[in-house]
Amino acid sequence: MKSQRTRARLLEAGLHSLSAAGLPGVTVGRLADAVGLSKSGMFAHFGSKTCLEIALLDEAARVATEHVVEPVQAWPEGLPRLRALLTNWLGWSTRAGLPGGCPFAAALFELDDLEGEVRDHAAALELHWRNLLRSLVVRGIELEQVRPDADADQIVWELCGIYLSHHASVRFQRDPAADDRAWAAIEALLGRYGADASNSP
Amino acid sequence: MKSQRTRARLLEAGLHSLSAAGLPGVTVGRLADAVGLSKSGMFAHFGSKTCLEIALLDEAARVATEHVVEPVQAWPEGLPRLRALLTNWLGWSTRAGLPGGCPFAAALFELDDLEGEVRDHAAALELHWRNLLRSLVVRGIELEQVRPDADADQIVWELCGIYLSHHASVRFQRDPAADDRAWAAIEALLGRYGADASNSP
Repeated sequence: MKSQRTRARLLEAGLHSLSAAGLPGVTVGRLADAVGLSKSGMFAHFGSKTCLEIALLDEAARVATEHVVEPVQAWPEGLPRLRALLTNWLGWSTRAGLPGGCPFAAALFELDDLEGEVRDHAAALELHWRNLLRSLVVRGIELEQVRPDADADQIVWELCGIYLSHHASVRFQRDPAADDRAWAAIEALLGRYGADASNSP
Repeated sequence: MKSQRTRARLLEAGLHSLSAAGLPGVTVGRLADAVGLSKSGMFAHFGSKTCLEIALLDEAARVATEHVVEPVQAWPEGLPRLRALLTNWLGWSTRAGLPGGCPFAAALFELDDLEGEVRDHAAALELHWRNLLRSLVVRGIELEQVRPDADADQIVWELCGIYLSHHASVRFQRDPAADDRAWAAIEALLGRYGADASNSP
């Protein structure tokens, strides 16, 4: 039991560091100091930096799922649920209590030139996320909420760009218009394929 | 003279590290090792990590200007020049011989939760870049290449998202369709404001 509580504390502190400083900012030694554990005590929980990084990416995915994905299951299928998901996605890390930005957005630029297990793990989580977005767009096509010629992959690709521009806009440029810009872009993108903007969350 | 050559070598090696590993991957000590200089010799060139990081961001901007901006001055004003610029911008770091991604794209996510001179310097360079994009869009409006109600700030905001999605798509997801996706998004964005796609580079 004590061991599980320690692990939970390590994951929480590690996710905070990951959000604020990215993967290069998280080390086994620094995290041990942050929770008052010896380095050998840390190794009982995370045998290597690779294990630690993978565990923290999983923790980020767990928290994101809780704050972004789970609350939208009550929304009608297709585009209403997609819009609810996008509402939760934009700026989720702050609402989830993290001190910095989205660990996955940062990982796209931190891990791109590396190889190995951490990159592969982040890529699998990122693909899982895009597949979720894609499934909502496809359902919207099936339900005739957008035109049948809508290109689901293109829509997801552009939504990811809107998310990244919004992230940079809020966190780096600190632009108060970021939310409005993001929603103007989202509605223009969906409108291009015939979606009706009236049922936004 | 020898000092200038050493500085040029330091900037080149430093920019390569910056491209591959981001700002957290560049340290005075590692760069000294890479060019065979003592740490005290390094301090004659860059008095602190802050000075080094600012010098490397400037070097990245210099190289980007040479590869992305200068070649487009011959293009007709407004949208033709904008499209030529976007052609050079997408994937520029590889064509400039850098081993990794765009240092500015990474900096948007590395520096967002920090304060200080390096962040302020990166923010000024980034704003300069967006203003360049904006001036080309505004010229396109003046020349009636897009409708007069086109929102230049919104267009620039979305172009930055397309760039970031393309960067993630090429370098992280390694998706061969990245260029096609980016251009489909760009032409849809410009077409939304009445632009004619016929004069693409």
